[in-house]
Amino acid sequence: MSAVLVISGGRSSTSTTEKVAEHVLRHVVARGHTAEHLRVRELPARALVAGDPADPAIGRAVEEVAAADGIVLATPIYQAAYSGLLKAFLDLLPQFALSGKSVLPLATGGSLAHVLALDYALRPVIQSLAAGHVVRSTFVLGGHVVTSKDGVTVDDHTAGLLRDAVDDFEWSLSARRQPTTVAHST
Amino acid sequence: MSAVLVISGGRSSTSTTEKVAEHVLRHVVARGHTAEHLRVRELPARALVAGDPADPAIGRAVEEVAAADGIVLATPIYQAAYSGLLKAFLDLLPQFALSGKSVLPLATGGSLAHVLALDYALRPVIQSLAAGHVVRSTFVLGGHVVTSKDGVTVDDHTAGLLRDAVDDFEWSLSARRQPTTVAHST
Amino acid sequence: MSAVLVISGGRSSTSTTEKVAEHVLRHVVARGHTAEHLRVRELPARALVAGDPADPAIGRAVEEVAAADGIVLATPIYQAAYSGLLKAFLDLLPQFALSGKSVLPLATGGSLAHVLALDYALRPVIQSLAAGHVVRSTFVLGGHVVTSKDGVTVDDHTAGLLRDAVDDFEWSLSARRQPTTVAHST
Amino acid sequence: MSAVLVISGGRSSTSTTEKVAEHVLRHVVARGHTAEHLRVRELPARALVAGDPADPAIGRAVEEVAAADGIVLATPIYQAAYSGLLKAFLDLLPQFALSGKSVLPLATGGSLAHVLALDYALRPVIQSLAAGHVVRSTFVLGGHVVTSKDGVTVDDHTAGLLRDAVDDFEWSLSARRQPTTVAHST
Repeated sequence: MSAVLVISGGRSSTSTTEKVAEHVLRHVVARGHTAEHLRVRELPARALVAGDPADPAIGRAVEEVAAADGIVLATPIYQAAYSGLLKAFLDLLPQFALSGKSVLPLATGGSLAHVLALDYALRPVIQSLAAGHVVRSTFVLGGHVVTSKDGVTVDDHTAGLLRDAVDDFEWSLSARRQPTTVAHST
Repeated sequence: MSAVLVISGGRSSTSTTEKVAEHVLRHVVARGHTAEHLRVRELPARALVAGDPADPAIGRAVEEVAAADGIVLATPIYQAAYSGLLKAFLDLLPQFALSGKSVLPLATGGSLAHVLALDYALRPVIQSLAAGHVVRSTFVLGGHVVTSKDGVTVDDHTAGLLRDAVDDFEWSLSARRQPTTVAHST
Repeated sequence: MSAVLVISGGRSSTSTTEKVAEHVLRHVVARGHTAEHLRVRELPARALVAGDPADPAIGRAVEEVAAADGIVLATPIYQAAYSGLLKAFLDLLPQFALSGKSVLPLATGGSLAHVLALDYALRPVIQSLAAGHVVRSTFVLGGHVVTSKDGVTVDDHTAGLLRDAVDDFEWSLSARRQPTTVAHST
Repeated sequence: MSAVLVISGGRSSTSTTEKVAEHVLRHVVARGHTAEHLRVRELPARALVAGDPADPAIGRAVEEVAAADGIVLATPIYQAAYSGLLKAFLDLLPQFALSGKSVLPLATGGSLAHVLALDYALRPVIQSLAAGHVVRSTFVLGGHVVTSKDGVTVDDHTAGLLRDAVDDFEWSLSARRQPTTVAHST
């Protein structure tokens, strides 16, 4: 069992990114892991903008990152890149903050034309934070995400994409822990 | 004479980025242009984070962008890219917001190892906003920026770099306006 | 009147990239400029791979770049980036080889998902060569390029895209030459 | 024990990239793995440029990639990116050619200013080939690589960097094979 933190950088409660992030979180929990959802927009805005690690809520969020085995980074694509909101949070993290962790990059966007933003823009930032293993990036077209009364929020194609992404992520989390498991078994 | 808007994305009043941005602004004004300095950290934090264009201060900032002939984008380099703060402001701009404008990308960083962040990370974002002409990127090493009592804030090497950058920028601004000038003269 | 060099990095004579490059060349010539088409695949392969500037054909190609006012860089998108063939030629150029020149980045690809490769991958390389002005990138979907008996090779949508690209490029070429023109007229 | 393929994209036999690649290969072999060194410049130039997979030597090289558990990609940095030569070889690989494989990105360059080229330029290409796990990128300053009579080719600092890189790579190779090992032991 791993501890997962889903960090989403959408700007509103109706954000498609948040819905997709929540969908992934439920998958992760259904497989027996623990997971929390950190919505960057809910952090104290002034402290976030000032990059103030002394703010208690910011401090707790940074600690949640440190405590997690795996991180899902979910962002809308704005102006051909990740949201400034998500980046403002990543800017608060200490050097090597993702060391030894598995990371799943996830984006929602209005057009396939934005797909490469994940690997060209977000991935180098994740690398600079020294992530242990970054799995394949997953891009979800906003038009494929719907809200219906029975709570189904993505279409079949997207559900498949996200299931595959969580498979990869879970494998990465387990591979990551193998050394410890081996050590315990001797 | 052109109207220039300097936008800086440093997180505090002691930010090296802000000092360098101010230095560039003084150069631009000394050459007979008008210039304003928009410090993103001074915008209302909550509205910035929520991406709320209805906020009056945000609305004015977006109008200042629309009214400018040239834009200086000044950012610290955090986690191998531009600051989330600067990007959060760019995320508020309408599509094509930089159409027909000259843009000068400018960064401050602690190590030469961050130089390519301007061309690989910031420039594609500027392109997505349909900038007219983006001049050479300029990178300033933080260690070369000092505050002394007589107000000199950069060393000779950096002063030369910034003078060259403003030369390029000014040329770009004038080239951009040439067609109108020609039209008027007929 | 400007001197334009179209450089294409497709791997075969049936390459869509070459067709689109040729289409752009005809546009440029129709507007009164001179233009040559340098197909990288026609350079001596061994000298290209060895990066040998002493090879006569390579030497002439490098001189053609030096003599041009404007450069069109046309590439297929392979593995989410420009072709190795195009890059192998750019690797032969001296530092600042594109200084003062206008550049039009142009790609053909099979899916919109590759669009950002131009601004995230090719543009930083062009910047490192110190290009004077790089106009908007243009991406052409391979499916929109056809060969018919009357020589029309692109559909209307693509023809419009390419006309706009050449408009931008031509404006950039003229803006670039204004200073010289003014100097001559005094 | 894993099968490793070191692919180097330097243009000459005196290339620093080749020396560093060879140094890494010896490390890998010393730890009990098998390793081959594929120098792209030794492939038939004409077939490489034409992207001809029917060429026997090209065909064998593509098969060596398919057979390897881990791939080291070693490149000089030219014009702020990987060499065209390396990319010309990667352009020959089928979609998903790196699926399930561990990859170590490695570059040599003349200045720290080129460090980010690995994560911003090469890594997205590696991702597009569906690599299983891409470990931290390693950048070696050319000035730190020397050839002495006793065969020591890198200084202590660089030796340490490369040892760490091979540690990461080896861990990645073992994590990757764990499932198979477990399967065999039942």
